[in-house]
Amino acid sequence: MSTVAVILAAGLGTRMKSRLPKVLHPILGDPSLLWALRTLPPDLGGAVVVVHHGKELVLAALEAWRQAGLLPCPVTAVDQGEPLGTGHALQVCIPELDRLGATQVAILCGDVPLTSPATVRRLCSADALLLAMDLQTPGSYGRVIQHADGRLAGLVEAKDATPEQLAVQRVNGGAYALPWPALRRALQGLTNHNAQKEYYLTDAVAAVARELPVAVEVCDPEELAGMNSRHDQAALQAAAQRRVQRHWMAEGVTFLHPDSTLVGPRVTLAQDVLLEPGVRLEGSVAIGEGCRIGQGTIITDSTLAEGVEVRPYCVIEQAAVGAGAKLGPFARLREGTDLAEGVHVGNFVETKKAKLHRGAKANHLAYLGDTEIGEGTNIGAGVITCNYDGVNKHRTLIGSRVFVGSDTQLVAPLSIGDGALIGAGSTITKDVPADGLALSRTPQTLREGGAALLRDRQKKQTRLS
Amino acid sequence: MSTVAVILAAGLGTRMKSRLPKVLHPILGDPSLLWALRTLPPDLGGAVVVVHHGKELVLAALEAWRQAGLLPCPVTAVDQGEPLGTGHALQVCIPELDRLGATQVAILCGDVPLTSPATVRRLCSADALLLAMDLQTPGSYGRVIQHADGRLAGLVEAKDATPEQLAVQRVNGGAYALPWPALRRALQGLTNHNAQKEYYLTDAVAAVARELPVAVEVCDPEELAGMNSRHDQAALQAAAQRRVQRHWMAEGVTFLHPDSTLVGPRVTLAQDVLLEPGVRLEGSVAIGEGCRIGQGTIITDSTLAEGVEVRPYCVIEQAAVGAGAKLGPFARLREGTDLAEGVHVGNFVETKKAKLHRGAKANHLAYLGDTEIGEGTNIGAGVITCNYDGVNKHRTLIGSRVFVGSDTQLVAPLSIGDGALIGAGSTITKDVPADGLALSRTPQTLREGGAALLRDRQKKQTRLS
Amino acid sequence: MSTVAVILAAGLGTRMKSRLPKVLHPILGDPSLLWALRTLPPDLGGAVVVVHHGKELVLAALEAWRQAGLLPCPVTAVDQGEPLGTGHALQVCIPELDRLGATQVAILCGDVPLTSPATVRRLCSADALLLAMDLQTPGSYGRVIQHADGRLAGLVEAKDATPEQLAVQRVNGGAYALPWPALRRALQGLTNHNAQKEYYLTDAVAAVARELPVAVEVCDPEELAGMNSRHDQAALQAAAQRRVQRHWMAEGVTFLHPDSTLVGPRVTLAQDVLLEPGVRLEGSVAIGEGCRIGQGTIITDSTLAEGVEVRPYCVIEQAAVGAGAKLGPFARLREGTDLAEGVHVGNFVETKKAKLHRGAKANHLAYLGDTEIGEGTNIGAGVITCNYDGVNKHRTLIGSRVFVGSDTQLVAPLSIGDGALIGAGSTITKDVPADGLALSRTPQTLREGGAALLRDRQKKQTRLS
Repeated sequence: MSTVAVILAAGLGTRMKSRLPKVLHPILGDPSLLWALRTLPPDLGGAVVVVHHGKELVLAALEAWRQAGLLPCPVTAVDQGEPLGTGHALQVCIPELDRLGATQVAILCGDVPLTSPATVRRLCSADALLLAMDLQTPGSYGRVIQHADGRLAGLVEAKDATPEQLAVQRVNGGAYALPWPALRRALQGLTNHNAQKEYYLTDAVAAVARELPVAVEVCDPEELAGMNSRHDQAALQAAAQRRVQRHWMAEGVTFLHPDSTLVGPRVTLAQDVLLEPGVRLEGSVAIGEGCRIGQGTIITDSTLAEGVEVRPYCVIEQAAVGAGAKLGPFARLREGTDLAEGVHVGNFVETKKAKLHRGAKANHLAYLGDTEIGEGTNIGAGVITCNYDGVNKHRTLIGSRVFVGSDTQLVAPLSIGDGALIGAGSTITKDVPADGLALSRTPQTLREGGAALLRDRQKKQTRLS
Repeated sequence: MSTVAVILAAGLGTRMKSRLPKVLHPILGDPSLLWALRTLPPDLGGAVVVVHHGKELVLAALEAWRQAGLLPCPVTAVDQGEPLGTGHALQVCIPELDRLGATQVAILCGDVPLTSPATVRRLCSADALLLAMDLQTPGSYGRVIQHADGRLAGLVEAKDATPEQLAVQRVNGGAYALPWPALRRALQGLTNHNAQKEYYLTDAVAAVARELPVAVEVCDPEELAGMNSRHDQAALQAAAQRRVQRHWMAEGVTFLHPDSTLVGPRVTLAQDVLLEPGVRLEGSVAIGEGCRIGQGTIITDSTLAEGVEVRPYCVIEQAAVGAGAKLGPFARLREGTDLAEGVHVGNFVETKKAKLHRGAKANHLAYLGDTEIGEGTNIGAGVITCNYDGVNKHRTLIGSRVFVGSDTQLVAPLSIGDGALIGAGSTITKDVPADGLALSRTPQTLREGGAALLRDRQKKQTRLS
Repeated sequence: MSTVAVILAAGLGTRMKSRLPKVLHPILGDPSLLWALRTLPPDLGGAVVVVHHGKELVLAALEAWRQAGLLPCPVTAVDQGEPLGTGHALQVCIPELDRLGATQVAILCGDVPLTSPATVRRLCSADALLLAMDLQTPGSYGRVIQHADGRLAGLVEAKDATPEQLAVQRVNGGAYALPWPALRRALQGLTNHNAQKEYYLTDAVAAVARELPVAVEVCDPEELAGMNSRHDQAALQAAAQRRVQRHWMAEGVTFLHPDSTLVGPRVTLAQDVLLEPGVRLEGSVAIGEGCRIGQGTIITDSTLAEGVEVRPYCVIEQAAVGAGAKLGPFARLREGTDLAEGVHVGNFVETKKAKLHRGAKANHLAYLGDTEIGEGTNIGAGVITCNYDGVNKHRTLIGSRVFVGSDTQLVAPLSIGDGALIGAGSTITKDVPADGLALSRTPQTLREGGAALLRDRQKKQTRLS
């Protein structure tokens, strides 16, 4: 038996009022469609994403996720063309599902991010199943009509429902598993004889239910909530936030202020990680045991080993940080930053494509780009690697136990040997050998009383001007 | 018919425990009194603000708002002098209301910020109207007694009420519209024969209601909630925040974390603006389509064109930012910053009275003050415009396609021609012509083994000391 | 009569999943145990803390708090050794309580941080008292059984309770005051004949209650809530946050966004302090009248005099700030920073062991460490005190009314006299006398058309490479 998932992701999302396709709007940093795809069991026969509105953006996202290894199973896409209803969305998938040799089909929505992997697994292994939810105020949702034994008897749209049917609080959650042969027949028999002139998937599901028993499983409504507006997006994110926090708190993570702390679904946190208020972790992030992440710090696609102290307001992207490193406050680690054990990167320091070896320090006001810095080297305040000459970028190689004095410009390409010392305020344009002392310094001159004279002159100018 | 609004703003606000007059305490960045004044319809015959406590501060604020064009109609102020009750507050307005030729008077409170403009418009166009609210626990509020046909029969203070009257849940909202001749007579007939020895406005309203029919409109209590304590202030701000967010979400704005995002009442946001957590927008702010505003960024009195990317933790005041610009993280744009299309201002960069033309870049650690920078010019890391000589400020003019090397000081007044190149670490004190290469550099010297020698000497000193 | 408190702090806190002992996990910056100890009345005969898990860390914390003067009374510690139940925890205290001459014992839990000092005072002065709470869903809590006159009749574990006892909603809060002789006898009579093979303190309390009347006081459950998981910790912190804010709002402090603002229990705020969103104040902090603390600012163990304006995103630790000073945004004040009246420390400036006298200014991009700066002195942008030579630290002394030009390096040890002027871009290695004008500047050179030539060459290199 080969189950193939179909993910509906063609909708415009009018109420989102957005140029971005609805399924690409993020929840804790990951687009809704990625949430949906990541719930799929890895042993599926594949997944087919039905796209149309904003097709190029969705296809590009799918390709990026595939390359990043984020998709648990092979995913293909089918363009729905002019959208003629949810049944039509499935009809356009018939050739692809046949091609994939589907025997079972699981149908999910790309704008429903919070279905749990366990629920999706049950759906994908069911013979024939509808996911439903029980709502106090079922409103305009389609009602689930069941036989006495619980089997699905039919699905009734709210506007077509009798008063008795309207009183039913069990509503259609929009996720189904059905045998492909039966569903295929039902799809081919669909008509659009209704007010909207649309082909309804629910009609096909009802037709299948007349042919064979379709079970009904009632889920937590949060698992089936869709994103149709920016309000929905905010509510889904809040629900996801609570769910993620519940998980990590039970694993021994402290959230100093849970309400303002956002941890994405692809983040892993070790025991005794402490997250201060306003921390945001997005993308693929791993944080080691005992790390303290300071207030307002944002970490994206990065790895921190154990015992790292990140002081407040660091912005860290695509970086690797070694055990016991100390960062910030106000440090910015950009792509390609690679810090070994015990490295210090302090306030108002920016790093980019910078490899700092064990114990190297850059504690204040510096720009380190396209550089490698050796063990135990100390980078003074205000040091700048001049990696850009206006046309090309060049690298700066600094050895171990080097002392680079404050406010030094290192004009790349440049190489500084182990143990060298660079005097403060130097412009270093030529390589420095190991243990060398390099300077570019003009002797200090003094005009006695010169400051007093200058002040008098400036004040006269002010009076004249 | 000429309607004049009277805004009561003389109160001390004892429970606020503040030196600042109560009506100047802010809600989402705007003082309560400004919220009240901005609800007034522009076709009013004027508005009279009754002031007393902190009069100088309130008058200064009124004048500032007038100059900034924030007042929808002409506003004058009357000093209540020693405050003898709300009726007395109206009595002191009699000459001013006569002078303005008022035929109708709408009375509002300066410490009630969230009345909607629509409600105020209805009030100002009514013949005679009282705004009321229905409360589950009416507590110490004055009860509204109505005739069978809904007309106002009387207003009873809670402490003077009979048990039947206390059971009434409809309470006085403190906002009224009344014909001026009738109200004027009633005010002149007021006495202070009561426990507090005060002249009550409610007595005057009741007197008018005995003369002519006064309608009662029940409003959402949020619209009539007053600010009497810091708790009230926090609750009002939370209500205002929800209201503003509801509006912008429906317009297609994403709030990644609504709870921590504060958007003031004079902010406009275009479609697909995305606000990250902790963003605060105050004063007169306009943000163009598709802008992303990074976490914790604070923007005050500024304009951003479409597609601007503001990375986290920028502080932007009185600035204009062109389309597609990239800012931050940790950029500070101060007053008079004017950035054209595609400009980059990066981390740890401060700008003040700085005009950057299309595509100019200052990506790292720089201070740019009193300067104009041409198209496509690149400002290196650590560059500083030395605009202040200790007495006067001077300007730095930099042409197009200039390359200013890292750590350069530009000592103003100074002019750098198009296409010029300034070597890293230079102190530039004289103008540089177009395409010129300017430097102030001392040749690099090297003492071989000098670093090793110096280290030995330092260690000996440490041992001795 | 001498009352001695016993604080139970030996537990592992399995559900915390932490290497840190449970009682050291923080609530608003202070560990739970410190909250408990600080509630003790100063006239106690002493307090005995029962420790075991993570003993070294707890003992070190106790010593640090003692040295910092945070303990209201003498505190000793007793190691429980292998923990055999709460009764056993008291049994191991017998020698210490005898030594202290206890006549009364008050028993509290170190993982219950929010008991109010007033409640603890009542407990410590009671003859014999149990603190209880009334819960809607008493669940697994021990039930309090009372005589008709209210006296304690017994304590029944939920699992041992009859259906009638289970229906009791009054539960044991785990805090007791008992006469020492009676409790001592009861402890010596304890057995561990129960399922867990533990010695229960509740058995001893019940035994005392059989001997003499033990009163029952019902408290707000928040006062007796314990911290057994990271969820509990978050809930306790939220409760503490509400309590602290209620207090300071009533004292005339504005919280612009209470939800994101965290004020610790050892912070004092004067009237008209305004806290912007995301402010965090921890440890011993005092903020003077009318200070405005900007968004996201973190202040630890520091004092601010009146009228200080702290702009957003400052990080301030162990600093003293004078009246009317202006800080930030993005200023970092480290230990030993001492700013006099009217000092300005601006964006991207770091200070450490820096004393700035009245009116001194360092507005942009600077590092000031191990320095003293005189009245009215102006520190230019990019100025760096080079206090570290790779081995030792040295001091920089700067007089009054000095003007230090931008991007200057001050190589310590160094002394600059009053009224001196340092030219921009200088490397100052020798002392400068009063009113002297010091420079280390290479004359600016110009190669006409040199920039154009260089660009051509660079482009050729790019083509070749």
